[in-house]
Amino acid sequence: MDQNGREEKVENGLDMEIADDDSNKYKKLDGEEEGEESVERMFAKQVVPSWRNQLTRRAFGVSFILSVLFSFIVMKLNLTAGIIPSLNVTAGLLGFFFVKTWTRFLENCGLLKQPFTRQENTVIQTCVVASSGIAFSGGFGSYLFGMSGRIAQESADRASAKDIKDPALGWIIGFLFVVSFLGLFSVVPLRKIMVIDFKLTYPSGTATAHLINSFHTPEGAKLAKKQVRALGKFFSFSFLWGFFQWFFKAEDNCGFANFPTFGLKAYDNMFFFDFSATYVGVGMICPYIINASVLLGGVLSWGLMWPLIEKRKDDWYSAELSPKSLHGLQGYKVFISIAMILGDGLYNFCKVLSRTLVGLYIHLQRKDPKMALPVDGSPPPKTLTASYDDQRRTQLFLNDQIPSWFAVAGYVVIASVSTATLPHMFPQLKWYYILVIYACAPTLAFCNAYGCGLTDWSLASTYGKLAIFTIGAWAGAAHGGVLAGLAACGVMMNIVSTASDLMQDFKTGFLTLASPKSMFVSQVIGTAMGCVISPCVFWLFYKAFDDLGLPGSQYPAPYAVVYRNMAILGVEGFSSLPKNCLKLCYIFFCGAILVNIFKDVMERKSKKFAKFIPLPMAMAIPFYIGPYFAIDMCVGSLILYVWGRINKAKADAFAPAVASGLICGDGIWTLPSSILALAGVKAPICMRFFSRETNTRIDNFLGS
Amino acid sequence: MDQNGREEKVENGLDMEIADDDSNKYKKLDGEEEGEESVERMFAKQVVPSWRNQLTRRAFGVSFILSVLFSFIVMKLNLTAGIIPSLNVTAGLLGFFFVKTWTRFLENCGLLKQPFTRQENTVIQTCVVASSGIAFSGGFGSYLFGMSGRIAQESADRASAKDIKDPALGWIIGFLFVVSFLGLFSVVPLRKIMVIDFKLTYPSGTATAHLINSFHTPEGAKLAKKQVRALGKFFSFSFLWGFFQWFFKAEDNCGFANFPTFGLKAYDNMFFFDFSATYVGVGMICPYIINASVLLGGVLSWGLMWPLIEKRKDDWYSAELSPKSLHGLQGYKVFISIAMILGDGLYNFCKVLSRTLVGLYIHLQRKDPKMALPVDGSPPPKTLTASYDDQRRTQLFLNDQIPSWFAVAGYVVIASVSTATLPHMFPQLKWYYILVIYACAPTLAFCNAYGCGLTDWSLASTYGKLAIFTIGAWAGAAHGGVLAGLAACGVMMNIVSTASDLMQDFKTGFLTLASPKSMFVSQVIGTAMGCVISPCVFWLFYKAFDDLGLPGSQYPAPYAVVYRNMAILGVEGFSSLPKNCLKLCYIFFCGAILVNIFKDVMERKSKKFAKFIPLPMAMAIPFYIGPYFAIDMCVGSLILYVWGRINKAKADAFAPAVASGLICGDGIWTLPSSILALAGVKAPICMRFFSRETNTRIDNFLGS
Repeated sequence: MDQNGREEKVENGLDMEIADDDSNKYKKLDGEEEGEESVERMFAKQVVPSWRNQLTRRAFGVSFILSVLFSFIVMKLNLTAGIIPSLNVTAGLLGFFFVKTWTRFLENCGLLKQPFTRQENTVIQTCVVASSGIAFSGGFGSYLFGMSGRIAQESADRASAKDIKDPALGWIIGFLFVVSFLGLFSVVPLRKIMVIDFKLTYPSGTATAHLINSFHTPEGAKLAKKQVRALGKFFSFSFLWGFFQWFFKAEDNCGFANFPTFGLKAYDNMFFFDFSATYVGVGMICPYIINASVLLGGVLSWGLMWPLIEKRKDDWYSAELSPKSLHGLQGYKVFISIAMILGDGLYNFCKVLSRTLVGLYIHLQRKDPKMALPVDGSPPPKTLTASYDDQRRTQLFLNDQIPSWFAVAGYVVIASVSTATLPHMFPQLKWYYILVIYACAPTLAFCNAYGCGLTDWSLASTYGKLAIFTIGAWAGAAHGGVLAGLAACGVMMNIVSTASDLMQDFKTGFLTLASPKSMFVSQVIGTAMGCVISPCVFWLFYKAFDDLGLPGSQYPAPYAVVYRNMAILGVEGFSSLPKNCLKLCYIFFCGAILVNIFKDVMERKSKKFAKFIPLPMAMAIPFYIGPYFAIDMCVGSLILYVWGRINKAKADAFAPAVASGLICGDGIWTLPSSILALAGVKAPICMRFFSRETNTRIDNFLGS
Repeated sequence: MDQNGREEKVENGLDMEIADDDSNKYKKLDGEEEGEESVERMFAKQVVPSWRNQLTRRAFGVSFILSVLFSFIVMKLNLTAGIIPSLNVTAGLLGFFFVKTWTRFLENCGLLKQPFTRQENTVIQTCVVASSGIAFSGGFGSYLFGMSGRIAQESADRASAKDIKDPALGWIIGFLFVVSFLGLFSVVPLRKIMVIDFKLTYPSGTATAHLINSFHTPEGAKLAKKQVRALGKFFSFSFLWGFFQWFFKAEDNCGFANFPTFGLKAYDNMFFFDFSATYVGVGMICPYIINASVLLGGVLSWGLMWPLIEKRKDDWYSAELSPKSLHGLQGYKVFISIAMILGDGLYNFCKVLSRTLVGLYIHLQRKDPKMALPVDGSPPPKTLTASYDDQRRTQLFLNDQIPSWFAVAGYVVIASVSTATLPHMFPQLKWYYILVIYACAPTLAFCNAYGCGLTDWSLASTYGKLAIFTIGAWAGAAHGGVLAGLAACGVMMNIVSTASDLMQDFKTGFLTLASPKSMFVSQVIGTAMGCVISPCVFWLFYKAFDDLGLPGSQYPAPYAVVYRNMAILGVEGFSSLPKNCLKLCYIFFCGAILVNIFKDVMERKSKKFAKFIPLPMAMAIPFYIGPYFAIDMCVGSLILYVWGRINKAKADAFAPAVASGLICGDGIWTLPSSILALAGVKAPICMRFFSRETNTRIDNFLGS
């Protein structure tokens, strides 16, 4: 099974890091490499608290703090390059650290009433992931911001220019509340089938469970403490580095983010190292092949294609157009990357769907629900009789039941509320569109949750794109199809994304003996937190940075333009594309599919070679915003590689902590930095770079 | 005994690092902490080669390479801040590395005729130190460059403006050849008295010998190999960093060397971190107190005094003067630092001289030449009977004799040649001045060699200053006293400096069983190399950098102005000083002496407290050029401190190698950088820093 982060993993990314390899890593760390038989025996003496006692106030206190932290980080990533690595390890580490410190403190004071259990830890993990998941699926960097007038101006399509809805705190929170809970209710009744009967893998959920289990052994707690210390060190470094950089960035064209590391000519083509601790950290977490793909995409586009297309300036497009116009060079950048994203998405959608269907078919045929699924070529489980671990886990998992009538009733109630309110927010989104979406949604949510359990890929944004095209075309250009499409995308994405998240959490809960009830409640609370926190964080960014979403600015929000233009394409067709752009789009669309097929074929023949084949999805990202963040990510890869060469064990154990520290520190610096921007405080110094000739002119100007 | 680097050590510095503490360190490293009794037994099986065989061609080949390397480094340090740390460890390490690699290679080919011995290693060490010593005592950053017209223009003294002699390769090489060998001959006959009878310590020489001895044990060779690897790594880093920085320095006001790390206001007062790997390395080698003193001096002068004096602009001096005029603020900077240097120098001159005389007196009184000297408070040796080591070393030291007639004849011949030729080079320097200098020189050379043996301080440049004032005053203003004084300074400095160097080497040779003859020959060859290499290196700098010696430039050569102004002071008195400057000079002159007295008194009462008292000599350096390099040095201190906290043993063993790597890499980068400058290749990019307001103006200018 290919776990190397694809489609959604690059864009969504939340599940990118903890794939099979990593779960092995954590197994090694907590010394249970020989199998999982021993885990529950180790914890046999520990009493599992009732589901109500798993939901402690301190857990949600910590979850709230971490949710704010992670919302900032995810929002920053959304609005810069759109690559979001897995923050599960960080959430696990920090959650453990906070509660452990608190209980240690209470214990020393003699006030500790309830010890810190792994079930509580799982509750925190679930809550934080649910909450920060909203920062992604809320579409602040994609569909939701794509509705705004600012992005509409950029897309330069006159026909749809009136189809805008500018962000405002009120409607965003309302929107998220009415669409985000449906996914939870839609898959709750299926949890037993997926987790116990089908025994789906859910690599991320499994890895997280291993991590949490390992933390609660004495050995694991010691390692976790060291990891937290490493995280803290790099957190401070990264925060202070962000602070230091701020002083030299009086204007957008100043500062380290514009450092022409490889010379001015390379800088003009966006090749430079921009000293961003975040993307160095992201590079350390992402697999090598993703970083290499991003860089390759950057070289192909900004190093080769754009300069070549620019030479045809007067031939292919008018030289008098503003450089931001989509009818000029910018158009090639946006639409070719859309073509690649769609090609890759389509291929993987078909692949995962066919696997899902084949898997389901085999399952239902066999009628042997205890048997794990071998469609993906993984070896069959060692024993067919249930182990001690399995028995105990199953017993506890089935103890606390969520009644099906509750789930169905919940779904119906929320769907009705949603159908009634959404058309008021988006008049273009008729009530019958919504009804159709909600009729199909449970099926799609199941598909996504099942596919994710098999392959660890959540295809949420692909389902979203599907909604853009279908609903957009249905509404038509005359009736505001662009806005209807984008809104439908939001509705769809939220349902399928939360559904697969919840099922991952059920799997984690299953492996850590956390009750399904507490998982569900924690996810509901986390989602509710996310529905308030994420819009507030976005609002802070939106108010603080006037140029949010503009190309070349600090926060270009590349996917906002991409999503809006997808909607326009879906509604209006290819009329607005510049010359030869459509041809190139076809080539790259087919190219993306072919590369994927080639990769899958190679995988069966020679795994060694297949891992060197780049991922089209990752290659498409720099097409629009430029390869500078790819350089950062490759620096992260390089650091990890050298570290691994020097001390493999240490690098394996601490690299995720160091990377998380780098990402979190820089992410949290955006809080004071946006507050400073809101307060109108500007940095005092501008660090700039000139060619020698320009410098001489400036010297003369300043001298006179 | 206070070894914390003073007077000459800060300015000359070549002997700064390896003080008593360090020799202990090396003792620990080679496992002979309990005493030196075991050393020669360890080497007993090794045959000591004859003195001719100690002088191998490969040794001089390596010496030549290292001499060029070190001449660049010392020259760069001369011309930037004038602080030169000990490079003995580096020379030892690199010499060992080169020859060992070569012999290992030959051994593997089966071609090795003569194994690499510690005597040969000592020969390399001696040759390199002698050669790079010329780069310091040649006065390229002080008296010699102080004669040039460029420096004369800056000193702004009309009366002496015609007393100039611009550098030219020919006369500099000639000058060095006729003055640099006298010192060697003057102290050769005294070697037995100093090394065997008086048993003088020579901490640097002893430490170097320990280092070399340790290298040639199997354990030591292993450590040395690791150290060389660390050196190599940081050498590459530092070289590449220098290379990277170059690209951003299109003009003098560009680049990392002008990075306003602490803001623009601090930058205007020269407080900034200039990213110089050299001075970070220097900071790692220098004791903490030196770095702290330099920083304190910087805060006192640029943070406090200069801003205060500048407020009296129209009162104390004319506001219309150019900022470089010595009648304005610049005058306060130069003369107050001269006052502190002279105060500190005078105190230490008296102190060392009195100790020398007292020591000599006690020695001659006792008539017990085997007894070491306890004047300095060090404990008497454990045994009075000669140990095995002592016997063997004494035997070999006395085996190869250099006849006294040879030394006397050599001295007389060279002195005559010198007396005959020098007046042709400097008409102002009459032959009878030179004769007087040469008559006193042997006594002064002996004093310096003896004092250095006791305290590890070579007072060479204090003797030089003595010559400036006496000969300058004798010649008088009318007869070119300024130039005569500077030339006399050169003659004097070269004699006393080489004399103490040679005696250090005899001590090293004594401890490594190297023959005095080979030491002498090696020193002669090294000196000859230095007389050619140093002027060539200086010439390269002089031709490559047009603004060499100008304040604020990359190479301000601060001591050139200081020395010239000392000569002017000596000849013409205090007439040219601005208002209140003389008063301040008196205060700082006395202050320097008082701080020294206080430090010495405290040393007797409470050593713990005494080490926190700053060194006036070190404080004086930033007065003129600004404290930016002090920031670098303190960063070096900080790194060393943190490293020591994390892993003391590793920091002790590898910090000198890392620091040497940083210094050497950056130093060697000056070779390609000056070649680029000579070839007229300018860097392509200018990194600049503006205030926000200026940046807005520039944006408008560039936009229009």
